[in-house]
Amino acid sequence: MPTFTAPTRDTLFVIREVIGLSDYEELPGFEAASPDIVAAVINEAGKFASEVLGPLNAPGDREGCTRADDGSVTTPAGFRQAHDQYRAAGWGTISAPERFGGQGMPDVLGFAVAEFMTGANMAFAMYPGLTDGAVSALLAKGSPEQQAMYVPKMVAGEWLGTMNLTEPQCGTDLGLITTTADPSPDGSHAITGTKIFISAGEHDLSENIIHLVLARIPGAPEGTKGISLFVVPKFIVNDDGSVGERNAVSCGAIEHKMGIHANATCVMNYDGAKGWLVGEENKGLSAMFIMMNAARLGVGIQGLSQAEVAYQNGVSYALERRQGRALTGPAEPDAKADPLIVHPDVRRMLMDARAFTEGMRALCLWCGLLVELAEKANTEDERQQADDLVGLLTPVIKGYGTDKGYDVATSMQQIWGGHGYIVENGVEQFVRDARIAMIYEGANGVQAMDLVGRKLARNGGRAIQAFFAMVDQECESAKEIEQLADIAARIAKTNGELKAATMWFMQNAMANPDNAGAGAHHYMHITGIVALGLMWLRMARVAVRALDEGTGDAAFYQAKLVTARHFAERYTPDAGALRRKIDSGAAAMMELPADAFARG
Amino acid sequence: MPTFTAPTRDTLFVIREVIGLSDYEELPGFEAASPDIVAAVINEAGKFASEVLGPLNAPGDREGCTRADDGSVTTPAGFRQAHDQYRAAGWGTISAPERFGGQGMPDVLGFAVAEFMTGANMAFAMYPGLTDGAVSALLAKGSPEQQAMYVPKMVAGEWLGTMNLTEPQCGTDLGLITTTADPSPDGSHAITGTKIFISAGEHDLSENIIHLVLARIPGAPEGTKGISLFVVPKFIVNDDGSVGERNAVSCGAIEHKMGIHANATCVMNYDGAKGWLVGEENKGLSAMFIMMNAARLGVGIQGLSQAEVAYQNGVSYALERRQGRALTGPAEPDAKADPLIVHPDVRRMLMDARAFTEGMRALCLWCGLLVELAEKANTEDERQQADDLVGLLTPVIKGYGTDKGYDVATSMQQIWGGHGYIVENGVEQFVRDARIAMIYEGANGVQAMDLVGRKLARNGGRAIQAFFAMVDQECESAKEIEQLADIAARIAKTNGELKAATMWFMQNAMANPDNAGAGAHHYMHITGIVALGLMWLRMARVAVRALDEGTGDAAFYQAKLVTARHFAERYTPDAGALRRKIDSGAAAMMELPADAFARG
Repeated sequence: MPTFTAPTRDTLFVIREVIGLSDYEELPGFEAASPDIVAAVINEAGKFASEVLGPLNAPGDREGCTRADDGSVTTPAGFRQAHDQYRAAGWGTISAPERFGGQGMPDVLGFAVAEFMTGANMAFAMYPGLTDGAVSALLAKGSPEQQAMYVPKMVAGEWLGTMNLTEPQCGTDLGLITTTADPSPDGSHAITGTKIFISAGEHDLSENIIHLVLARIPGAPEGTKGISLFVVPKFIVNDDGSVGERNAVSCGAIEHKMGIHANATCVMNYDGAKGWLVGEENKGLSAMFIMMNAARLGVGIQGLSQAEVAYQNGVSYALERRQGRALTGPAEPDAKADPLIVHPDVRRMLMDARAFTEGMRALCLWCGLLVELAEKANTEDERQQADDLVGLLTPVIKGYGTDKGYDVATSMQQIWGGHGYIVENGVEQFVRDARIAMIYEGANGVQAMDLVGRKLARNGGRAIQAFFAMVDQECESAKEIEQLADIAARIAKTNGELKAATMWFMQNAMANPDNAGAGAHHYMHITGIVALGLMWLRMARVAVRALDEGTGDAAFYQAKLVTARHFAERYTPDAGALRRKIDSGAAAMMELPADAFARG
Repeated sequence: MPTFTAPTRDTLFVIREVIGLSDYEELPGFEAASPDIVAAVINEAGKFASEVLGPLNAPGDREGCTRADDGSVTTPAGFRQAHDQYRAAGWGTISAPERFGGQGMPDVLGFAVAEFMTGANMAFAMYPGLTDGAVSALLAKGSPEQQAMYVPKMVAGEWLGTMNLTEPQCGTDLGLITTTADPSPDGSHAITGTKIFISAGEHDLSENIIHLVLARIPGAPEGTKGISLFVVPKFIVNDDGSVGERNAVSCGAIEHKMGIHANATCVMNYDGAKGWLVGEENKGLSAMFIMMNAARLGVGIQGLSQAEVAYQNGVSYALERRQGRALTGPAEPDAKADPLIVHPDVRRMLMDARAFTEGMRALCLWCGLLVELAEKANTEDERQQADDLVGLLTPVIKGYGTDKGYDVATSMQQIWGGHGYIVENGVEQFVRDARIAMIYEGANGVQAMDLVGRKLARNGGRAIQAFFAMVDQECESAKEIEQLADIAARIAKTNGELKAATMWFMQNAMANPDNAGAGAHHYMHITGIVALGLMWLRMARVAVRALDEGTGDAAFYQAKLVTARHFAERYTPDAGALRRKIDSGAAAMMELPADAFARG
């Protein structure tokens, strides 16, 4: 049976020492997050994740969700009780606003808790995770009445939420949506159509389910400019806030999937269901993007968390399983064989996993801080820079983070050899679960185009220029520290590759936009390497100082420095290769006629 | 439902025009492979694979194998009938020796047929595939009586074979085997022990199953020097060749796996089963390596074949599914959206898949020729060079080929978006099936160490030096051809990286063998890139000539040239990055104490 231990030590290191949460205590909401409270939240959340959710992960995968003929959906054994406990403990309320019953704590904590819950049980964590996205959209675009009606119950976890975008004929291309919303005399709309791939669309965890649905009002403009957002509750809410009559929305089927079996992925049928417009008519897409951006960061955290749990199980097997001898001579001559961890190729995979998970954790938590600084920082400059960085990093965290999360899960499974392929050992589940994160909330190719086609150019490249400068500055100051000079030089080189790639796009994408498209995936990966490099420099700088000052826990800080070196040695070389791929442009890639692709 | 079309056109191109099979018609066995016969075999095998085996692939995955309480195992519906047809058509006999009822045709054809069968249905193709490995071992090490007793029935497919190496406590490290073989007065041995992960260990496809089993004779030296090979039939064979009494070997359980559900992976219990020594006492490992080397090439072909079938289904979806618009403006303005194939990132994945599958196919088929030239070529020099190359390329075909096969299967699934995650669409199966190929027959880390630790150094580096020279020569002659000059220069550069990496190992692995281990995986991947590069140069040279000479089918040859350019642009840059990773050595990778890896 696989196990999960929440990486609380590393999380507290990032929150306290790397992003320095206490530096922001004068900002609204941050004062609640005293060091003691932070430690208590992290440790308790870790305990809950490891003890309550973790043990349900493998059985949940095995059992899956079941749909009855009446359209009701049952989650795996134990999920409902675990959700009751989750709700009772208030895990969904941490960074929700106080006026709606939340604890109003910094998003950083919400991100950290999300990582733990997702690492323990990704399919479970999606139920509250999607609710958070729906709450964001209601907070941003809903009327005060809508907010009052839905948000407190959703924050409390009494009602859960969903996002309804995809239809059979449209996923990425939301302009193709055909679900209709006919105005009714009472001010509501009658929603009719079929939505597919609706995560948590139907289940038995909450008394109501609040669907946010994209649909088209008759006469609306074609394409994405004619899409509106509606709130469609499973049970219509009475004026007194109680749950009323059943709405005409139902689960027509649940999908059989490669992974996340314990999360119900539903076909949702809307048969004239009552819905209420959220925000302005035909402005649904911008409202949806608020949910989507939050959700994309959440999906990036899924990549991190599946890599983390896979890493932990890779480590335990590498320490326990004995095969062969160290190349340098028997490490444990009295045993019949040495543990796997003596083998360099096993180490390579484990160190790659450390370098990714720890760097990615820092990046996600930093982004969690930036999300809030974008609203709350003291100066307009700081707010703008934070907002720019969130915009730039979101597709990277989602796209690079989930590509790598899957890679790491796969290589951790590799350590298990044949035993990793056996269902009962539970590590192949991490690969299957991690796989979806590369696909949903905008497939990673869409993330790459978001980065290259939208985020780079916005405001004359302001965000990427600020990012370049930030990395350069970090490299410059790290070069002054003896133990970090080589690491800094290597990371500075990746920043140089990123600048060169950016310049190449500026010079070549105007003439042919396919030149940008052809390199977008590679560019996203270079940016991911540079962003992790920035995190590694920051972490390594803290580690050097802690070791110099002898603050204790030397082994932890030593391990940070070694892992930083590993990152510099094994991750940075790819940046150059990726940049050279970009330089090739679109010509050969786009040359073949479509009919040349079939085999015969 | 996914589909599979055997890539007969491309296969015939490689056999006829790239490796030039007819150049060898004076060698024994090759005279039987006239161009007409080759075309007939390839086309008929393709038809059989696509029409008979392909349709059983997805249902076989869904149904899996079942074990009854009596230990018997039932394969999925249709498998038995398909195997009867396979046997009746003689597909297992193609390259088997004529004196045992085979058709005695070149191995190249056997490899091509194996690719088709495996592409159509990997789990099915493993049943005859493992039999081929067992036959190789019997032909190499069995007594004339053993050969006469088992081989004809196995070649005919009436009896199938297995390889029994792994035990619960040992996979890679066969020195840990504890299964015993006690000598009996009648000259047989009583085999006792448990073997796990035995593919095709029990099933209902054949009247007998011939197990080749590694075990230890009492008093044998410890470790790998005390292991012997035994043939242990499920039913003991009577003197007249008929099937006699049931032997004391049985299937104790079948595994639940991530993929290849339709192949029964068995726990095999040997309870004093009658076995007969194959070859010399305590020399079992060398006999097993004969099977294993053949099997490793077969597993490399699994990587190729799963990439190929995934590619085909990626193409069909990219041509059919419409989302969004081309970056250069609507490609089909009258439709609501353009097909996916207009998007550069989709093209990137498809072209990467073409570059891999076509290059890998050429490499596998060339290796199929070399396997035979190593025995049959006219001069000792030619035989030696062929044998050297087979030794060098086997771990590359297995390790690089299956790593890339999985990557390609994953990216083809990505093209399908959310639909690729749904079981019924069948493309996620290719990923799950491809995954095992990186693990079994020596995990890819073991392949990398075989390459770096054994194959490089053997005979003073003779094999790799010959390979360097062969690539250099190919690059030199390609540089003279205008359309190929740039491609050749890029591939020559990868050969330079490989030389530099080889030199680095020579200089640094003696002082610390971990320096070799730390770079072995990267080295295997550089070698894979160079080997595919060599194939692409050869294919491109043929294409240029065919286009110059106007031999017809210009679209096919044009596509070869474009794909060669894509390979040069998008695969070769990685060689430099990989070489730089090797240069970092083992220091940081091996520095952390084992107890630093756990989280808390």
